[in-house]
Amino acid sequence: MSSLLYEWGANILHADQHQDHELGLFFMRVEWALDGPAEAPLGSASSVSEPSQSFDFAGFTSRFTPLAAELGMRWKLWGKAHRPRVALFCSQYLHCMADLLHRWRAGELRCEIPVIVSNHRDVEKLAEFYGVPFEFVASGRREEAEARQLELLESKGIELVVLARYMQILSPKFVSRYPESIINVHHSFLPAFTGAKPYHAAHTRGVKLIGATSHYVTDLLDDGPIIEQDVARISHRDQVEDLVARGRDLERIVLARAVRWHLDRRILCYGNKTVVFD
Amino acid sequence: MSSLLYEWGANILHADQHQDHELGLFFMRVEWALDGPAEAPLGSASSVSEPSQSFDFAGFTSRFTPLAAELGMRWKLWGKAHRPRVALFCSQYLHCMADLLHRWRAGELRCEIPVIVSNHRDVEKLAEFYGVPFEFVASGRREEAEARQLELLESKGIELVVLARYMQILSPKFVSRYPESIINVHHSFLPAFTGAKPYHAAHTRGVKLIGATSHYVTDLLDDGPIIEQDVARISHRDQVEDLVARGRDLERIVLARAVRWHLDRRILCYGNKTVVFD
Amino acid sequence: MSSLLYEWGANILHADQHQDHELGLFFMRVEWALDGPAEAPLGSASSVSEPSQSFDFAGFTSRFTPLAAELGMRWKLWGKAHRPRVALFCSQYLHCMADLLHRWRAGELRCEIPVIVSNHRDVEKLAEFYGVPFEFVASGRREEAEARQLELLESKGIELVVLARYMQILSPKFVSRYPESIINVHHSFLPAFTGAKPYHAAHTRGVKLIGATSHYVTDLLDDGPIIEQDVARISHRDQVEDLVARGRDLERIVLARAVRWHLDRRILCYGNKTVVFD
Amino acid sequence: MSSLLYEWGANILHADQHQDHELGLFFMRVEWALDGPAEAPLGSASSVSEPSQSFDFAGFTSRFTPLAAELGMRWKLWGKAHRPRVALFCSQYLHCMADLLHRWRAGELRCEIPVIVSNHRDVEKLAEFYGVPFEFVASGRREEAEARQLELLESKGIELVVLARYMQILSPKFVSRYPESIINVHHSFLPAFTGAKPYHAAHTRGVKLIGATSHYVTDLLDDGPIIEQDVARISHRDQVEDLVARGRDLERIVLARAVRWHLDRRILCYGNKTVVFD
Repeated sequence: MSSLLYEWGANILHADQHQDHELGLFFMRVEWALDGPAEAPLGSASSVSEPSQSFDFAGFTSRFTPLAAELGMRWKLWGKAHRPRVALFCSQYLHCMADLLHRWRAGELRCEIPVIVSNHRDVEKLAEFYGVPFEFVASGRREEAEARQLELLESKGIELVVLARYMQILSPKFVSRYPESIINVHHSFLPAFTGAKPYHAAHTRGVKLIGATSHYVTDLLDDGPIIEQDVARISHRDQVEDLVARGRDLERIVLARAVRWHLDRRILCYGNKTVVFD
Repeated sequence: MSSLLYEWGANILHADQHQDHELGLFFMRVEWALDGPAEAPLGSASSVSEPSQSFDFAGFTSRFTPLAAELGMRWKLWGKAHRPRVALFCSQYLHCMADLLHRWRAGELRCEIPVIVSNHRDVEKLAEFYGVPFEFVASGRREEAEARQLELLESKGIELVVLARYMQILSPKFVSRYPESIINVHHSFLPAFTGAKPYHAAHTRGVKLIGATSHYVTDLLDDGPIIEQDVARISHRDQVEDLVARGRDLERIVLARAVRWHLDRRILCYGNKTVVFD
Repeated sequence: MSSLLYEWGANILHADQHQDHELGLFFMRVEWALDGPAEAPLGSASSVSEPSQSFDFAGFTSRFTPLAAELGMRWKLWGKAHRPRVALFCSQYLHCMADLLHRWRAGELRCEIPVIVSNHRDVEKLAEFYGVPFEFVASGRREEAEARQLELLESKGIELVVLARYMQILSPKFVSRYPESIINVHHSFLPAFTGAKPYHAAHTRGVKLIGATSHYVTDLLDDGPIIEQDVARISHRDQVEDLVARGRDLERIVLARAVRWHLDRRILCYGNKTVVFD
Repeated sequence: MSSLLYEWGANILHADQHQDHELGLFFMRVEWALDGPAEAPLGSASSVSEPSQSFDFAGFTSRFTPLAAELGMRWKLWGKAHRPRVALFCSQYLHCMADLLHRWRAGELRCEIPVIVSNHRDVEKLAEFYGVPFEFVASGRREEAEARQLELLESKGIELVVLARYMQILSPKFVSRYPESIINVHHSFLPAFTGAKPYHAAHTRGVKLIGATSHYVTDLLDDGPIIEQDVARISHRDQVEDLVARGRDLERIVLARAVRWHLDRRILCYGNKTVVFD
């Protein structure tokens, strides 16, 4: 690999590996710039992305494919200039949505957001403020709603769907259209408190920490590969309302991290788990 | 209450209240010194406990009982001079045991430890070093083992049983003899991963944080009132062995906190939850 | 106190005490509802505030003043119906501002925000979106700028000034007009890395955690009573830009908590410290 | 590198890289087993170390040296079978010492501990229990004390000195004998509260989190490269004694992590910072 990259004039910026000895799997993430602008300061995304536009993707691919096949590798190649197209879904709670939009505007999330979809109208003004087209899709019959949603996503060329506290369960059919490309935030420390009303359940159980989890969506509810989790300390003084309020901060953060890592191609899925190269 | 304490010459050091509006319950913890040594520096436990020995427990009780009855109060009164008698149970893993014994020796835990009980002999030398009598009780048939254990506990006047990674499940009969007086540490963030091998389960699920929980033991396995929980961040790089190693630090800490709080009478149980006045 | 409140028909919802034995000080915070609507659900702010409007503030004050004087108490009384008037200041970084405004809109912060002040124009659209009047005050000569700012604050009846990453240092004269009523967020774990460019300093020192601190502003830079702090783990992989990005989440959270606690009258200052009754 | 290792029959278990683009430095840590026992389960340290004993260190070195020189590399090579010889120093507080010794006995720390040195006698029994020779060296005149200590360390072939709450300041002369090989724990979140009595200083300043820091010792007090830090939340209720008690848990953990990472050769120093490959 290193030799090949060297040959193609790549200046490796980051290289991460991971080996799962149990399963006999090897994972690698390599980020490189082209030789010319080796003086491009790290983190200066725009200057790094410049050369990658002139990178000969097709040539590299035809050269690398047989090598990868020989090693039994599954691989993907991205140019940093490409900004993935992301759809944001939400229901009536807007804290995650407002947070993602602000981060996007501030340049923290390298993507396009061509559409916001909701079964509520609360988000409309926020969408407008950030200049993102808003599409209302009533929840009604799921089959119809999803047909409309999928049509929208397709027409907008969406590559990643982010469920920013979207309270409808997606059908297996929908999920299968975006494998490892739908990120959800669940307001508990999974696998504790799956399903509805996790803060109520946490309060009833009397836990001393509450959590939030971002994960890829699979057919099984709240069961997909976990991307990020965080917790906050609570006490007997905290009522359900307090857990909800404390939890909002956790949800915002674990969802935003998951989206950023996904966009930066830092996440590899295998089995029902993730490798996150941070 | 305040007036009564005032009348008895009590100088209130700490007073904590909590109201569960949902259940209509009110909780209170009051810690006081007698008037004389009001200059006793807070935290200087010995000087505070001195006067409480001369406190007229019987007199106060007969005066307070009708008042409490009128208000529908359940109450308890302790003198700080009394050092509860604690039995420590363990199996082959000794990290929690070594930690508790060191804290005890260092004065962090205000109690007597008249006996260490184990179904393994690994702890014997440690017990000897700290000068605590060790009793080996083979796990064998649970009924017999527990009969022997209960006999021991009774003969030693034990008030609190601490399960410091004791890997046997106690019978309802045993548990009923020490209501809200058996503290266990479970090596997961309950209610996630109850039962055996929680670190394996956590690894399989691919969580990003592992946890540990200390709780009172009830008839239902890993279901009693939670006293304390803590978590540590892990990553895809961590194998089960790493989780076990990281987890040991969590277990030590959540168990030690629970024991200290219990000894300091900071924990009130209700329903299946705890109020911890820290 | 309890008797007096009882007499006035108060139904105590929360009562917190703290004693500083070293300094011989006693702190108390009591939150109550009036007897009538004792059935008002806790946390339902609007219904709780209703009765307090009819509370006889003047009568209670004249009754309580001599008692307080006798006990050497400094005290304040607020009705929950009163929503404090808050001015938000910022410079070019908008993450704290966007966060506070979203929380305000979502009902997390019980206050009015009659004005946003900045020495930059970046915040203008955001202010407009949330319907808050925006005032540009060029930094230029501090004396003039502050004169204009103070005039604004006075005309708007401002009770609390929140510096949401406002990068100008306020003069002692300004500070003296709002004692314990200016909240700042500093992007380090104070007292480490006071002054300018704390993330650069943290990177140079090679710390393994970065922090953020919210505090009341006093004459000494970054030295006022600390209200809240939080930290996040970093590693050698993180460059200054990464610290800045990670830090933004900390800043948002510690500032929002400080503002909420101040508005809920949970903070008492003494010496150069705070008591926060959460 | 990879090619050379491949040629020598190395089966790479872990490989970590880090690049400091600012300073133009590149860091790498590679851990490998020999081909034969490639089936050696990861984490099973003993089986991994077996083959490394038969590794041709001299041959590899003579082959690698010119390559390294060409690339301007500073490098070191260790066999896992070698257990570094560690001296533990302490004064009267024994919590870190007891913790390290327990971890060592439990197999968490891969090293020999041929000596414990103290200017107090409190640790003597603990040393005896763990079968470690104890040497009392009175603090008295530093020059004399250090001469005696250095003599001891030399005679025991010590490679790493761990200051487990050792309250004497080492001279530059002493420090220069063990460059990047003396680990200290400081009971604050450095660089805040350097020097004596950090918990008192933290209490006076009114911080909301306390911390502990493990670091390599250099000539400047509390200024060496930071290895690990952690913090715990405190409140206005906590007096200095409480900070001390809470802090003990932090100190134990950050020191133990630093020692383990050092022994596992996970730490690289540069400038005044560390790269920790975990």
